[in-house]
Amino acid sequence: MDLAILSLMAGLSALGFATYSTWSILKKEPGTPHMRGISDAIREGAQAYLHEQLKTITIIVAVLTIILAVVLGAFIATAFVLGALCSTLAGYVGMKIAVRANVRTAYAARTGLNEALHVAFRGGAVTGMMVVGLGLLGICLLYLIGVNPSQIVGFGFGASLIALLARVGGGIYTKAADVGADLVGKVEKGIPEDDPRNPAVIADLVGDNVGDVAGMGSDLFESYVGTILAAMLIGMEEYGKDGVVFPLLLQATGIFSTIVGILSVRPSEGSNPQSAINRGMFTAGLLTTILTYFLAQQTFGKPNVFYAALTGIATAITLGLLTQYYTSSDRPSVQTIAKSSQTGPAITILTGLAMGMRSVALPILVVCGAIFLAFEFAELYGIAIAAMGMLSVTGMIVTVDSFGSIVDNAGGIVEMSGLGPKVREITDALDSVGNTTKAICKGFAIGSAGLAAMALFSAFRSAANLEVISITDTRFLIGLFIGGAIVFLFSAYCLEAVGIGAFQMVEEVRRQFREIPNLMEGGAKPDYARCVDISTRRALKSLMAPGLWAIITPIAIGFTLGAKAVAGLLAGSIVSAFVLALLMAHAGTAWDNAKKFIEAGHFGGKGTPTHAAAVVGDTIGDPFKDTAGPSLDILMKLMSIISVLFATLFIKYLLLPY
Amino acid sequence: MDLAILSLMAGLSALGFATYSTWSILKKEPGTPHMRGISDAIREGAQAYLHEQLKTITIIVAVLTIILAVVLGAFIATAFVLGALCSTLAGYVGMKIAVRANVRTAYAARTGLNEALHVAFRGGAVTGMMVVGLGLLGICLLYLIGVNPSQIVGFGFGASLIALLARVGGGIYTKAADVGADLVGKVEKGIPEDDPRNPAVIADLVGDNVGDVAGMGSDLFESYVGTILAAMLIGMEEYGKDGVVFPLLLQATGIFSTIVGILSVRPSEGSNPQSAINRGMFTAGLLTTILTYFLAQQTFGKPNVFYAALTGIATAITLGLLTQYYTSSDRPSVQTIAKSSQTGPAITILTGLAMGMRSVALPILVVCGAIFLAFEFAELYGIAIAAMGMLSVTGMIVTVDSFGSIVDNAGGIVEMSGLGPKVREITDALDSVGNTTKAICKGFAIGSAGLAAMALFSAFRSAANLEVISITDTRFLIGLFIGGAIVFLFSAYCLEAVGIGAFQMVEEVRRQFREIPNLMEGGAKPDYARCVDISTRRALKSLMAPGLWAIITPIAIGFTLGAKAVAGLLAGSIVSAFVLALLMAHAGTAWDNAKKFIEAGHFGGKGTPTHAAAVVGDTIGDPFKDTAGPSLDILMKLMSIISVLFATLFIKYLLLPY
Repeated sequence: MDLAILSLMAGLSALGFATYSTWSILKKEPGTPHMRGISDAIREGAQAYLHEQLKTITIIVAVLTIILAVVLGAFIATAFVLGALCSTLAGYVGMKIAVRANVRTAYAARTGLNEALHVAFRGGAVTGMMVVGLGLLGICLLYLIGVNPSQIVGFGFGASLIALLARVGGGIYTKAADVGADLVGKVEKGIPEDDPRNPAVIADLVGDNVGDVAGMGSDLFESYVGTILAAMLIGMEEYGKDGVVFPLLLQATGIFSTIVGILSVRPSEGSNPQSAINRGMFTAGLLTTILTYFLAQQTFGKPNVFYAALTGIATAITLGLLTQYYTSSDRPSVQTIAKSSQTGPAITILTGLAMGMRSVALPILVVCGAIFLAFEFAELYGIAIAAMGMLSVTGMIVTVDSFGSIVDNAGGIVEMSGLGPKVREITDALDSVGNTTKAICKGFAIGSAGLAAMALFSAFRSAANLEVISITDTRFLIGLFIGGAIVFLFSAYCLEAVGIGAFQMVEEVRRQFREIPNLMEGGAKPDYARCVDISTRRALKSLMAPGLWAIITPIAIGFTLGAKAVAGLLAGSIVSAFVLALLMAHAGTAWDNAKKFIEAGHFGGKGTPTHAAAVVGDTIGDPFKDTAGPSLDILMKLMSIISVLFATLFIKYLLLPY
Repeated sequence: MDLAILSLMAGLSALGFATYSTWSILKKEPGTPHMRGISDAIREGAQAYLHEQLKTITIIVAVLTIILAVVLGAFIATAFVLGALCSTLAGYVGMKIAVRANVRTAYAARTGLNEALHVAFRGGAVTGMMVVGLGLLGICLLYLIGVNPSQIVGFGFGASLIALLARVGGGIYTKAADVGADLVGKVEKGIPEDDPRNPAVIADLVGDNVGDVAGMGSDLFESYVGTILAAMLIGMEEYGKDGVVFPLLLQATGIFSTIVGILSVRPSEGSNPQSAINRGMFTAGLLTTILTYFLAQQTFGKPNVFYAALTGIATAITLGLLTQYYTSSDRPSVQTIAKSSQTGPAITILTGLAMGMRSVALPILVVCGAIFLAFEFAELYGIAIAAMGMLSVTGMIVTVDSFGSIVDNAGGIVEMSGLGPKVREITDALDSVGNTTKAICKGFAIGSAGLAAMALFSAFRSAANLEVISITDTRFLIGLFIGGAIVFLFSAYCLEAVGIGAFQMVEEVRRQFREIPNLMEGGAKPDYARCVDISTRRALKSLMAPGLWAIITPIAIGFTLGAKAVAGLLAGSIVSAFVLALLMAHAGTAWDNAKKFIEAGHFGGKGTPTHAAAVVGDTIGDPFKDTAGPSLDILMKLMSIISVLFATLFIKYLLLPY
């Protein structure tokens, strides 16, 4: 019997657990009619956007499927479609549940923290389990019916492409709305977050779902799949069949551990919700570590691969702690930014940028150390396994991340339906738990992306038969430069789209406050739909270009300058994207928390010029941390996967031979 | 007779021309007593700062000289000291003349544009001729007394080190003052640029001299020297003695052409001053191109090296045009930023960052094209020669750049001494010429730095005997990541220092406006000295750390992980620094010009919230374009030069052997 069957079953169990969690949420009370009305508006907006996005994506996928089928054969094309489908499904189903869990969490918050945490956490678990279940199931299915790992890469391509488009589109949607809502609402009008008088508030809440739930789900789906594939490819080369099946089994233990971890999140009334979630993460992490040890011993007869996985786990924890250090409001970075806000937005931004730039050094040293150790333990396979170690509890990470978005939304519904400050306090407490964990998860996502991209990079090397390159090879160097440039060009598209969207949103919100009588006094309802429409149109208009650049660049370079240039392109883009993603995640979160630190009453608190300056910082950080930053994680892997797929063709059909 | 004698004579001629220009300036009228008072304050502030900076630098140079003498021998140590000395001298003398030329330009502006342009341009020529004269003279002397090119690299190390410290120190000084002056003066108080009531105005004017004249002089001195050295090193390997002497002769023709070019700048009253300067640049460029052709034919018997130089010249022009496209106020980038300012500073900054990120793609494509062509024409030597082609009229570039700073200062003196709007109009006209040309020069400096760094990188390869590297060599990849990180860490130090300095400056200027009675009404004099003091202390405190990181990183990596990791470090840092330098130069200038575009009356003009938002953008752009950005050009070459010097030692004394 092929052991991969076990992994298939683990994937099915995950989907079963997701179904069970869905059922346990849907049986909860969906709230008062007023709350349901708000929730319905959010749900409809989110679904309407996702359907439109799906149309755009379908066109791109269809064109690419035809090209892949003709150029690379039916297996790869089929795997591609399956990957795209699973990725879409993971994000879509997760969001469908999240928009139902939010109102139920809000309603449950009336009876207490425990109940609210339970509902929100189970809601998050649906996305978490969908992501890992579909990911492992898809790969195992392809593997068991006999598709070669180098063809299963097509599955990864599908997943990466959807992830990129969903992250970029969702990120633009949510941040155009968020920035627009904050700039007029908080800075100009001085009304609180999620105030129902703000015309952009529904768009903002919709954005949380399409960006932070659906986009994030597809994003981590691709991290999960990409990492497994990288390990399978290198494993096949270095250890044969054992090397291919081991990653699958490793993730099966991860799913098992995650389910145990999720079930262990049972807060007792009065205790800190953070510690309940920490317990769940710790349980999952410990269990998977122990199981990995036995699995590695069993498969390879020696623990060196386990050490590589352990390196990955240790790296993930260290990166998480570093992220917390650079972004927590009780640490110097955030406090320096908050302090600098006293002299206005310019110094706030300069200081935040400087902090963000400075914060990349230690994480990179940690990742370099991980690369060094993992390679010592098990060569290139060790690097891929270290990435897997980082992502062994992906299910848990996604669960916690979606949990954060659900409580964020629940807080919005509480505010808008006027359930009162007591209930809001509960959702706020849960929200702050969500924010801390989100920041840590970002560290995970970037770190694993860096290692996975490096593993894919070495898979490309063997696919393209590039043993060695002269370091001053001009084609390699040209590729390196273009790799650096494409990362910045890609980020430019993301920031620009948010800038334009937010500009239109600000103009629209200002217009409504000006033209709708009694809006500010609460006597009239704003026109939410127009703001939803602005975000939708901007996201759909702007998600295409960065996606196309990511696909076309490696192919164009490969066919003109050859595999050496592509190697440079990948190396240059991985380094630039990694550094920039860290900068953006840290600076964005630090600005956000500096603003919250001031809102908590420091340096004069809300309503002061200092607070206004901090809001400007937060606003710039928004597309950093939620649009461009996370998309860069995907970009580096997407370009690597495309290069692996086309490697042999680059050699056959080279336009400018050396 | 060694042909290098000719180059020595060219270097001497340049110094002679600088002396003549100095004499022709000093005989001009130094203005009214009031003007002289202002000018004296600027001069004293600038000299006091440079003396303090010199003390700090002397300590670093002394320590390094001892280390170099012990580790690498007396020749390299001597060359190092000489390089440091010449670089300091080039910046120092240039500044000494500039602070005298500024008041004379201001006074001459009373009689008309022609006279003012003449004085300012000759003032600029002093720095220009000092830079190329000392550079060529120093290298030729060392070469003629028999020092080996691989030891003359020590001269380049000295030049680079001083350049880095002077750029960072001067950049922090000038931008802390500039940002502080603008944020309170323009945004909070609504008084114009250079208003004598602003307590930071003298510090701002001093900053223009220590940053934009002295710092820029040392900076371009190192570009000039570094490029010649790279060409000599590769030339020695590929063509023997001819390959070494050719770069020296090439720069001799450049000096000759530049002198002719400078003499041809003779504006006629009523004509556009820009066209007079363009004529000078065009004359110099054309003359040097023709001479290079004959020189290359004479030396190598075929024109391929000339084609490489021509590639460099064409690249320089294209980069200049691209820079103009991305930063001119009649082009879409700047106008989009100006338009976005209507919704406040947040969108201004997002849009500017996006424009800056987008603007790196085309210049990088152009440079990649240049690398490809130059390599086709004359292999690696071609790349070094292309860099020389770009810098063949360095003397002209420095002249025009210093000219810009002198007229900027002259405008300040006119404003402060109340010479009236007619005179200010003339200095403003000259200032706008200076700004356009400055932006183009930045494109030159970055482009040539990229090519020169690549040439030095390949010199490192042969010094370290690294023919080929596996592209997935973990040490190379680790180096690549650290290379990316160090560039961001370095930039963080620069931005942070400006942020802190500006913060203190804002607090001090606010305090003076609050506590000195009648200051705003013009009835009292502000305490200029305290602002000068803040800038001085901040710059001296902050210039050390980035300098040390730049020196220590390659050495530490080299002795622990070896030459392969250093190769990665250089590749990673060159790519990151190049991209980031372009981004910063373009975004910084675009924000500046967007502000000027609004000040010219668009979108409501001065005093509106739109203008305030644009000033915030400009303020963030200031340290981008004048502190961190230009320092990155130097960083990439400094790290390469250090690596070349220590290459053999990395192999001998490796801590963690493979």
